[in-house]
Amino acid sequence: MNRGGTLRGLGVGPGDPELVTLKALRHLEAAEVVAYFAKRGRPGHAWTVVASYLRGDQVEVRLEYPFTTEVPVSDARYPLAMGRFYDEAAERLAAHLEAGRDVAVLCEGDPFFYGSFMYLHDRLADRFPTDVVPGVTGMSGCWARAQTPITHGDDVLTVLPGTLPEAELARRLADTDAAVIMKVGRNLPAIRRALTQAGALDRAILVERGTMPGEHISLLSDEELEHRVPYFSIVLIPGRKGAR
Amino acid sequence: MNRGGTLRGLGVGPGDPELVTLKALRHLEAAEVVAYFAKRGRPGHAWTVVASYLRGDQVEVRLEYPFTTEVPVSDARYPLAMGRFYDEAAERLAAHLEAGRDVAVLCEGDPFFYGSFMYLHDRLADRFPTDVVPGVTGMSGCWARAQTPITHGDDVLTVLPGTLPEAELARRLADTDAAVIMKVGRNLPAIRRALTQAGALDRAILVERGTMPGEHISLLSDEELEHRVPYFSIVLIPGRKGAR
Repeated sequence: MNRGGTLRGLGVGPGDPELVTLKALRHLEAAEVVAYFAKRGRPGHAWTVVASYLRGDQVEVRLEYPFTTEVPVSDARYPLAMGRFYDEAAERLAAHLEAGRDVAVLCEGDPFFYGSFMYLHDRLADRFPTDVVPGVTGMSGCWARAQTPITHGDDVLTVLPGTLPEAELARRLADTDAAVIMKVGRNLPAIRRALTQAGALDRAILVERGTMPGEHISLLSDEELEHRVPYFSIVLIPGRKGAR
Repeated sequence: MNRGGTLRGLGVGPGDPELVTLKALRHLEAAEVVAYFAKRGRPGHAWTVVASYLRGDQVEVRLEYPFTTEVPVSDARYPLAMGRFYDEAAERLAAHLEAGRDVAVLCEGDPFFYGSFMYLHDRLADRFPTDVVPGVTGMSGCWARAQTPITHGDDVLTVLPGTLPEAELARRLADTDAAVIMKVGRNLPAIRRALTQAGALDRAILVERGTMPGEHISLLSDEELEHRVPYFSIVLIPGRKGAR
């Protein structure tokens, strides 16, 4: 029985092309079809990371989001349109898989740690063989570049999407040793207020474009209140239990 | 001025040698001195991961812990002896660095996410140039192998050392979307009770030796109460907000 091609999520790491794993590179080079997500008018971040490794004769499937982050997640159109978008994206890949072609989906960071691949996996894992190659997460890339150990000993680490309500951010920041705030972008003013309320602003490190060209690392408290940052910026709050 | 060699923490990933990054491999192959931590009588886990990549003519520095996990962290001897151990380890590496030799310290998973490299970094970063190459964490390796997306959308992820008191584990497990419990080993019975109390036992996945020979993945609730697991086993509690 022909079980079809294999759907493979490839973690390509935080941005530096050298932070791709040997396994991801092997599968990338072998894949007949390479799929990636992209925002309208952009090359696709994960695609950019591995562009120099692509053979040139592979079928590329660009999966373009129906809108950018300008439409808030709370908008009623958002979940409907995104669900339809992932349905259609899954069917485009299913056509290749049914024809017996392996499909590599490029994933920024790690495929199962936030990110869009999971919505394809949810839709296709019952129908085709699937495989996931883990990657270095964006947060690991950021704390390495910031030369900041994040957790020692029995520190608790809380990973918080910056899209959470400010009061919830503040409550959780006050109740953890170390924290990482993802999806920063326009949420930065609320994140800063939450950090202040939790007494953690003085330890907060802002990393923009970590491991990539244009990288900028600073103490958040040193930045102007009006400072604007990319969506994928990360705020690090290192644990406190380290000194030994 | 001779600033000395560079101290470099190399994340070697969760166990599968192919999950090493291109950057870690390049620095590993170039290092004059390769240092690694090991328990008495064991080859050293990070060393095992990259053994096939070592040139054979590199100076290897084995840093052997003064005792294994048999001495509890709560024992008064523990912090004193560990502090002395890290002081001595740092001085052994400092001798090479002062002589101008680059030293690569092999780190399981990611160098700044728990683990021992940080104690060397704390002691040496002021004296020598330092660099950190992030790696794929053990938890990423485990959730990839378990084919389990861990966080979707705005899920909160809490990373908990299994060494925490049972009541604290239960409280934090009840107050998060997704969780990862590290350092499982002999803490498994308390972890199971905490998961039960938090209503999360039915979702908990146990991963032993993730990405390595002897890997075993199971629903924790399917395992016998007497089931014994290695210290570095991981328990995954996937987020719940995914369905879309």
